[in-house]
Amino acid sequence: MVSKNQIKLITSLQQKKYRKEHGLFIAEGRKVIQELLDASFDLHQLFVTESLFEGIPSSKRFEITPLELTKISALKTANNCLALFKIPSDQKIDASGLLLGLDDVRDPGNMGTIMRLCDWYGITDLVCSEDTVDLYNPKVVQATMGSIARVRVHYLNLESFVQDYEGPVFGTFMDGVSIYKEKLPNAGIIIMGNEANGISDKIAELTTQRIAIPRFGSLQQTESLNVASATAIILSEFMRSQPS
Amino acid sequence: MVSKNQIKLITSLQQKKYRKEHGLFIAEGRKVIQELLDASFDLHQLFVTESLFEGIPSSKRFEITPLELTKISALKTANNCLALFKIPSDQKIDASGLLLGLDDVRDPGNMGTIMRLCDWYGITDLVCSEDTVDLYNPKVVQATMGSIARVRVHYLNLESFVQDYEGPVFGTFMDGVSIYKEKLPNAGIIIMGNEANGISDKIAELTTQRIAIPRFGSLQQTESLNVASATAIILSEFMRSQPS
Repeated sequence: MVSKNQIKLITSLQQKKYRKEHGLFIAEGRKVIQELLDASFDLHQLFVTESLFEGIPSSKRFEITPLELTKISALKTANNCLALFKIPSDQKIDASGLLLGLDDVRDPGNMGTIMRLCDWYGITDLVCSEDTVDLYNPKVVQATMGSIARVRVHYLNLESFVQDYEGPVFGTFMDGVSIYKEKLPNAGIIIMGNEANGISDKIAELTTQRIAIPRFGSLQQTESLNVASATAIILSEFMRSQPS
Repeated sequence: MVSKNQIKLITSLQQKKYRKEHGLFIAEGRKVIQELLDASFDLHQLFVTESLFEGIPSSKRFEITPLELTKISALKTANNCLALFKIPSDQKIDASGLLLGLDDVRDPGNMGTIMRLCDWYGITDLVCSEDTVDLYNPKVVQATMGSIARVRVHYLNLESFVQDYEGPVFGTFMDGVSIYKEKLPNAGIIIMGNEANGISDKIAELTTQRIAIPRFGSLQQTESLNVASATAIILSEFMRSQPS
């Protein structure tokens, strides 16, 4: 059974301002919820349509019908469970190794995919401009496939952060040096830009190394790669020379 | 002005069976439409809300209102133009270089991103199992960002095709050899699997080279990369040793 007030709260959490107001976010699907529980995220309430997840206090666990789940789900096709977790407080940035910086990446799917890539390649910290899509947007949470439990995301003034950052600052530009030829270090910050506009002028000025992903198509008409594809290729190239 | 019959036809084209019946597909947005025109795709009808595109015969060009465009658009946020193009007839496969094979990739966004990657890396031919998402799905057309005009996609019995293929057959598996250590050739077929199930057993049996993308995360809990991310990394690795 899910109450009217619960429905109101949960659907409000699809909007950033209510997530901020309540300090809660939505996670859907067994895998994501389990990984958040395993990573000791603070569970607020759990809604299930069948007997899933053990050891959850009954005060936090609500058995509901599939129809009720459809009402509270942010997905087109609802799963069999939905949970509300508390948004963790800001964590310290570990800036000792490779960092990824997102300069106004807006698409939830791209953000989620980039978090999976960070998780895969052992990038623990992602620094984001304040206009980058919110990590706790239900579509992002879904697209991370559980990586949200392991990668720390920090929203901050990216320009100031990069200005104060002491290592090399990598940015991808059409006229950059081929990543296949450049010697890439194991510390530094790699900036990825907005889907339509790329890296903003202010951040571009702060980059110390302009890199490029060479293009091989014979027609050479492709204008750009998707930002998540570009991130995949660049992280692969940075990591390939390091011991696994 | 758009007639009731036109609305009916256009909205029906969001479904594969009607695309097949009419031999038409929808393209939306100035960039995609222009690239299809430039690549000599056969225009059936063009709908615009403002004066766009020159030299289109008036019999094929319809000026409509933004509200009318909303009615026929398959997008959440309609653009300022929509076109119907004829689906080209089957083309010959150029199997001389690197080929990419998709074994039941289902997500339109992944398909579109993979086509952009092929375009970027000069892979001209994509061979797909019959259950792979339809190239002419409006979401795929949109996600290709124009690459649909340059990459040839072939739907076929992938198992038979791979069986008859004479070069090396690469497949990605957890227990494969690191792509960072393997010497990769400039001809062969690279198979990418379904989002949830990976490469099917039948195709897996036909692979001659099992490769893997090494994982670096210290917790090593990430189960998989998104198929488009994996394609990006693998194509980059195949191409990096070739002259650009």
